[in-house]
Amino acid sequence: MTKPSASSPPHQAPKPSAVVPVRFEGGRLFVIDQTRLPALVAEVELKSIDDAAKAISRMTVRGAPLIGVVAAFALALHAKKSANLHFAEFEKAFARGAKTLLKTRPTAVNLAWAIGRMEHTFDDQMLSGPSRVAEALLKEAALIHREDIEMGRRMSELGAALLPRGAHVITVCNTGALATGGWGTALGVIRSAHLAGRLDMCYVCETRPRLQGARLTMWELAQENIPATLITDNAAAYLMSRRRIDAVLTGADRITRRGDVANKIGTYMLAVAAAHHNVPLFVVAPSSSIDERIDLGKDIVIEERDGDEVRRIGRAFITDRASRVWNPAFDVTPAELVSAVITEKGVRWLGRGKPKKAAEK
Amino acid sequence: MTKPSASSPPHQAPKPSAVVPVRFEGGRLFVIDQTRLPALVAEVELKSIDDAAKAISRMTVRGAPLIGVVAAFALALHAKKSANLHFAEFEKAFARGAKTLLKTRPTAVNLAWAIGRMEHTFDDQMLSGPSRVAEALLKEAALIHREDIEMGRRMSELGAALLPRGAHVITVCNTGALATGGWGTALGVIRSAHLAGRLDMCYVCETRPRLQGARLTMWELAQENIPATLITDNAAAYLMSRRRIDAVLTGADRITRRGDVANKIGTYMLAVAAAHHNVPLFVVAPSSSIDERIDLGKDIVIEERDGDEVRRIGRAFITDRASRVWNPAFDVTPAELVSAVITEKGVRWLGRGKPKKAAEK
Repeated sequence: MTKPSASSPPHQAPKPSAVVPVRFEGGRLFVIDQTRLPALVAEVELKSIDDAAKAISRMTVRGAPLIGVVAAFALALHAKKSANLHFAEFEKAFARGAKTLLKTRPTAVNLAWAIGRMEHTFDDQMLSGPSRVAEALLKEAALIHREDIEMGRRMSELGAALLPRGAHVITVCNTGALATGGWGTALGVIRSAHLAGRLDMCYVCETRPRLQGARLTMWELAQENIPATLITDNAAAYLMSRRRIDAVLTGADRITRRGDVANKIGTYMLAVAAAHHNVPLFVVAPSSSIDERIDLGKDIVIEERDGDEVRRIGRAFITDRASRVWNPAFDVTPAELVSAVITEKGVRWLGRGKPKKAAEK
Repeated sequence: MTKPSASSPPHQAPKPSAVVPVRFEGGRLFVIDQTRLPALVAEVELKSIDDAAKAISRMTVRGAPLIGVVAAFALALHAKKSANLHFAEFEKAFARGAKTLLKTRPTAVNLAWAIGRMEHTFDDQMLSGPSRVAEALLKEAALIHREDIEMGRRMSELGAALLPRGAHVITVCNTGALATGGWGTALGVIRSAHLAGRLDMCYVCETRPRLQGARLTMWELAQENIPATLITDNAAAYLMSRRRIDAVLTGADRITRRGDVANKIGTYMLAVAAAHHNVPLFVVAPSSSIDERIDLGKDIVIEERDGDEVRRIGRAFITDRASRVWNPAFDVTPAELVSAVITEKGVRWLGRGKPKKAAEK
């Protein structure tokens, strides 16, 4: 792992965890290439808007909050490099850059939100000239980064407080430093619980088809020696029946007004199993993941992705190339199966309510 | 696919399905190499006890009933080849062969059961001399093979009758021709339902870690144009919430007196999801899978296998090589979550009982 040097400039967010998914240092932007983890830990430098756009669309960087942070830094860098232009040209270059980044992953809410903040900063400062605008943009990107880590820490502390000492938890996908500015949501809670000495074991569902649990979460937890055990997704219910599990912790891609949760495929199966075994289910996400325009989970459009994600693992086919496949990328868990949604603003108890055990401990 | 020729000798079981996992023709024993499916469909000839023992231990052939059939044919072949020996030598060679085969997979009940039947035949015929013994052994092996297919057909017809017209079902692992003498248990029911025009779609769980659903079941169903759709294991519950599913059908590795079921890991998670969605769960297995000595499922010893089965897919690592793994090969579903156990002897309704819908249709 490359770590930020001691001479980090003031706009560099403080080192949040052993895993640093994004660095902006000496005017240069670096990200970990997540497509190569865990076989190879390598940073790539994003030198231009095009580099950043490719990194996002090819999933070199992934995780909605992280994509927002990377886009903000890429725009700031772009503005700095074009600060010698006349203002009209400078403005055009910035608008083009924002548009290019926005197109990479149109469904990621945080990307549009981060770019919106940068555009707002640009408009606020535009009378002071290109150099000043570029400086302001850099500060705003660093602020977005820092705020993301701070929100992660806040929701993580709220979540960790709900776990007993010696907790055994189950998680799915990657919701950690690698998905955010450097702390995490559900995996942030697990990190905080570990730091507070409350965590005995984190079971990680491998998360087919893209294996983010096996590839990313197991690697991320290993960087900080957080005790972790990998399981196949289909073993989670049996695990709940055999060993004490204190909570299932997941992130969220979108949360409706009433508390229905769209998240990585497999979350709903975990939620059903957790309810059957009376294990609390905590959903951890920034408040910006709550979509106030939608009430019912069934109204969230669920993306169905290419069948080859299931047919192949790496380059190898694991089934007939002609096999028909159903490959929903997400599923919907109704609020009735959720114990609580945890954001940076607080804990909202939902359908399954406050577990008696958690309240006692 | 190699098919039995029209000139099959009388001891050859009748062609049971488009998939012929084992053939004994012209005094030669052939099996499909299941480790190479679906990339390559190739038969290998088993010329000796050692060949057969290696094929079983390396999982070139797998599936408890099929292993029993292959072991019986291998012993018959072995006896035929040593029929020119003096009786004492002939007897020794047979005993050595039986012992070698028995050691390959000590936990597979059907293997010991099939070898026991061959030993019994040997003892019955031993006064008539090596040639007659060898003949009798060949007949017994063929009978074991034929009976396995007939039992499969019987339980399949009993199971198919429980499904509505236009049925949508979910299955896991491989419980078809490739796991048996040539028909199947749970997948036998699906084959019979298809032949009876009652099946609209079979959803196949890929079945991590060894992917028997993706590799074997999808291939087997394609051979007979049975409509099939592959899903990741973690998508099954969401599927039940989104589309009409009429039944979950699984095999069994062992069934206790009260009806608790040990089966491939993932079965329990499917059972919990099926109960939550009010989808019937049918367990299909020969009556020899019922272990009358055990009452409670928790008393069945569950094998935990090498973590590399999870860490790797094919030769590629999908996680840190050092990742800790929990890899139970099977799980236990309590009778309370099972609708019925279907054997060749009949349908036994269990904890969840007869579904109202199925009874009406």
